[in-house]
Amino acid sequence: MSSRKDWKDICAEKRKAQSAAIPPEWIIQPPPESQSLVLDVPAQSGLLTERELEITETTDVDLILQKLRSAEWSSVEVTTAFYKRAIIAQQLTNCLTEIFVERALQRARQLDDILRETGKPVGPLHGLPISLKDQFTMKGLETVMGYVAWVGKFADKDSVLVEILYECGAVPFVRSNVPQTLMWGETYNHVFGRTTNPYNRKLTPGGSSGGEGALLAMKGSPLGVGTDIGGSLRIPSAFCGLYTLRPSYERLPYCGAVNALEGQESISSVLGPMANSMSGVKIFTKAIIDAEPWTRDPLVLRKEWSEKEYRLEYHGGGKELCFAMLWDNGVVRPHPPLQRAMEMTKAALEAAGHKVIDWEPHRHLEIYKNAETIFVADGGHDYRVQCELSGEPLIETMVPPTDAHESTLSEPFVKTLVGEAARLGAYDLWQLQKEKRELRKSHLDHWERTVSRTGTGRPVDAIISPAVAYTAVPHGLNTDSFYTTLCNALDYACTVFPVTFVDPKLDRPLPPHKFHNHEDEAIHQLYSTDLFAGCPVGLQLIGRSQEEEAVIAMTEIVDNALKAARKRSNGS
Amino acid sequence: MSSRKDWKDICAEKRKAQSAAIPPEWIIQPPPESQSLVLDVPAQSGLLTERELEITETTDVDLILQKLRSAEWSSVEVTTAFYKRAIIAQQLTNCLTEIFVERALQRARQLDDILRETGKPVGPLHGLPISLKDQFTMKGLETVMGYVAWVGKFADKDSVLVEILYECGAVPFVRSNVPQTLMWGETYNHVFGRTTNPYNRKLTPGGSSGGEGALLAMKGSPLGVGTDIGGSLRIPSAFCGLYTLRPSYERLPYCGAVNALEGQESISSVLGPMANSMSGVKIFTKAIIDAEPWTRDPLVLRKEWSEKEYRLEYHGGGKELCFAMLWDNGVVRPHPPLQRAMEMTKAALEAAGHKVIDWEPHRHLEIYKNAETIFVADGGHDYRVQCELSGEPLIETMVPPTDAHESTLSEPFVKTLVGEAARLGAYDLWQLQKEKRELRKSHLDHWERTVSRTGTGRPVDAIISPAVAYTAVPHGLNTDSFYTTLCNALDYACTVFPVTFVDPKLDRPLPPHKFHNHEDEAIHQLYSTDLFAGCPVGLQLIGRSQEEEAVIAMTEIVDNALKAARKRSNGS
Repeated sequence: MSSRKDWKDICAEKRKAQSAAIPPEWIIQPPPESQSLVLDVPAQSGLLTERELEITETTDVDLILQKLRSAEWSSVEVTTAFYKRAIIAQQLTNCLTEIFVERALQRARQLDDILRETGKPVGPLHGLPISLKDQFTMKGLETVMGYVAWVGKFADKDSVLVEILYECGAVPFVRSNVPQTLMWGETYNHVFGRTTNPYNRKLTPGGSSGGEGALLAMKGSPLGVGTDIGGSLRIPSAFCGLYTLRPSYERLPYCGAVNALEGQESISSVLGPMANSMSGVKIFTKAIIDAEPWTRDPLVLRKEWSEKEYRLEYHGGGKELCFAMLWDNGVVRPHPPLQRAMEMTKAALEAAGHKVIDWEPHRHLEIYKNAETIFVADGGHDYRVQCELSGEPLIETMVPPTDAHESTLSEPFVKTLVGEAARLGAYDLWQLQKEKRELRKSHLDHWERTVSRTGTGRPVDAIISPAVAYTAVPHGLNTDSFYTTLCNALDYACTVFPVTFVDPKLDRPLPPHKFHNHEDEAIHQLYSTDLFAGCPVGLQLIGRSQEEEAVIAMTEIVDNALKAARKRSNGS
Repeated sequence: MSSRKDWKDICAEKRKAQSAAIPPEWIIQPPPESQSLVLDVPAQSGLLTERELEITETTDVDLILQKLRSAEWSSVEVTTAFYKRAIIAQQLTNCLTEIFVERALQRARQLDDILRETGKPVGPLHGLPISLKDQFTMKGLETVMGYVAWVGKFADKDSVLVEILYECGAVPFVRSNVPQTLMWGETYNHVFGRTTNPYNRKLTPGGSSGGEGALLAMKGSPLGVGTDIGGSLRIPSAFCGLYTLRPSYERLPYCGAVNALEGQESISSVLGPMANSMSGVKIFTKAIIDAEPWTRDPLVLRKEWSEKEYRLEYHGGGKELCFAMLWDNGVVRPHPPLQRAMEMTKAALEAAGHKVIDWEPHRHLEIYKNAETIFVADGGHDYRVQCELSGEPLIETMVPPTDAHESTLSEPFVKTLVGEAARLGAYDLWQLQKEKRELRKSHLDHWERTVSRTGTGRPVDAIISPAVAYTAVPHGLNTDSFYTTLCNALDYACTVFPVTFVDPKLDRPLPPHKFHNHEDEAIHQLYSTDLFAGCPVGLQLIGRSQEEEAVIAMTEIVDNALKAARKRSNGS
């Protein structure tokens, strides 16, 4: 045992190697640590040329791809531009893990050559740099995934997603940070440290795909891939003002990616895109499904991308939709900015000719508790096994040791026991799964019964709800995931889309309501316009299982309605 | 405890009630118990009119439905004919559980009335009597599923499948026998006793859908529904000369049906049709999927019936297919009749312009062991809980107490421990699930690599293999399920189709080969032309996950090729 390297030394060496991978000319003069908002630093840093700023400020992925296909922009220049900006993001928010500039540029050159020689793009993602959460194994690179013991584990092959991305012509160009164990809604681990939110570095970008969240908010990547088992795509997307899709279990290929709780299949983690536009979300999802991933990943559903479902043929052609607004799930009441975002969305949809009714919450707390109990059915054994390999301690709080924000909100609401004594048996797990089936049936029937209230002849087309009850919170305070976990447990396809920003004038604190529970009270007390001013406010659109195409199409409708409303309001 | 009724009394009362449900005029003079083959008894019994014989001898479900839709046959007369024949089958093979003649006839009358009044059939299964394995709950009826404790449990609603069958215009008309625990490849329980094989009552019809197997072989039902978690549709179909489809997990709605090991989701039980024709298999599957079962069963895949996949567009349009024959999986070598059936099928397919290459077995025993270990992860706790409710003992062998066939083949090959000490933890189950994922990936890659050997530019289109290494065996000797469990573990969609019958002249015993293991040797020694003469010989066609449409289409191709070969051989 004495020969085992100290885990802190391993972390220090890995961090050093990471720094060394950054081209020295890309090091910027950083703003003072006390500067909270850092979104403008890339433009002000002087590191990016005007053209590089133009490229990286282009949020419409469809437009970037058009320019790449037409060779108006080369892949080398697009990759270089985003890489430089990603490295700036890294210096400001600590969002990256693996950095491999030359490898990415070599790939980009290869794609440029092929396009020049053949006149044909390699695939639907030709030339596009794509960032990946630190789970998507790439041949020859380490995949640390927040565990010290995994430093030095070099992959001998690409994960299936990466294989397909290469065939689609993409340029995987950087990997992004995660929390230890992946099972946190924030982003901190012993190897790479803490990722911060570029809207306010005192706040968390969320997690577990928090590296992607910060990176994309900084426009350091046009398209990222994260994963979600309880909200890990949606929490950072909501906290960082992004679009995302949480697809249903096994629609997109997870095979070959590393994961926490491997073999846990009651509530499967899924992968999905994160972007600054819905076009990125759609293009990625369609490209991966069109590649017939079921020929490489035995768990992926053999279900083609359906234009019929994207045209909303199961939803009356999308002409007069009926949405249901989840104002309060009866567990925690959303903060004022979320309530305003829902009001804005309701008004925008009504102005666009759609209907919005209220969603009646149905067994949210039961569903949440069932899911949380499943996640720790092993009493945390899986986490301990990984930690013990290196000797690093299991992280028990995301609250920083210094400069912690004072709050009563630092304990998870549903206390899930972690410890050998809490390990469940296989039979107990079967009983939880049986209960989950019953809950899914109950919620489905509840949804179907809304047919009597919509006036469209159909049940509610989609639910609109907060993704999280609050906007980005101080580090250590994002302890729960009530609004997101619902969709993981019930396997509803869903998206997150940005609506607005916290406005101290409009989002005044509300007087105390009759609190649902202690958590609800603590969250109420946490709200402060000073703390949250300027933070992005996102919402969640929830559809049915395996309804990715329809959920994307409906989110486009909502997004366009909001944009039209914004235009009207700016014009008036 | 003294107030608890003796479980034997409960069984006796239930049997008495079952007998009382049979109209006295349908009681036949039974043949002597020593008569093995009873398939001809319905025609000779005098109970069925000529027209009833014509109806029940019609094996093409499409033709029956045409005659029902055109009112050439009324639902009442079709239901009556099959019911009478089912009751004869019951008296010969003990295949039924719930008998409810008047309820079924009332439903049939209602359908006849609607057709007469509106001129329109109610749905795609208008007027068709359908038999159901004793798991598919129907409002107001008991669902005993082989457990004494479940006698007297009257359902307060229909299972989702039954709801859909009613909406499709079907007449659920009888329920069929199963083994205690459902986890046997034979059919015996304390409540209803043992079901026998009408081709030879000394042999088992297989299980767990063995009641359906015997009933359909007797032509006592035009279409049955069974379930399959390790071979429970395919073993009885092979042993009884039937067609079946084992669809992939969650393609057809299981919600609301009772089951063993509820909550076990690592390898899910699935439901499927059993019939005397492929038309029955196709019509049922398409009708259920067309009913959009995902709006009622939250676990069912949102995947429409795909005519594109049925036209075999992923298989070159079905014009020049390449099948791979699994002659021997390296665990147990199939008996001579199975080998002849494979030779016949190969020749028939080649004559029809298709290609047949050899399948190289890949990790069969590992896959089998993984699945068997998952099934008893609870150490049998679920079984004991159900038995203890009534005090009935857990059945530990299917060997009859008297008249047992002598054999060394009475112990399962892979000893799966059942007992409190053998209960696994949730973490252990996760490790098994992780191993299963790895096995699925490995087998998928193995399959994809066959592209180098097919000459079609595609990997092998389907595998053809035995469903079981032998034809129906004496009661108690069907201890393993090597060839079927593969598909449950890997979730491959597959069918069983009949090929021929054991012919003592053609199927001579073979000299001993180098045995793979003890089980292989015992199975080799079991073969005897006297014992098996006349037994049906079926094979299995294995496709990919969620490839139900293609697997049905390819089985039709194989079936037609065999029929054409039979015609040629009869003509020559």
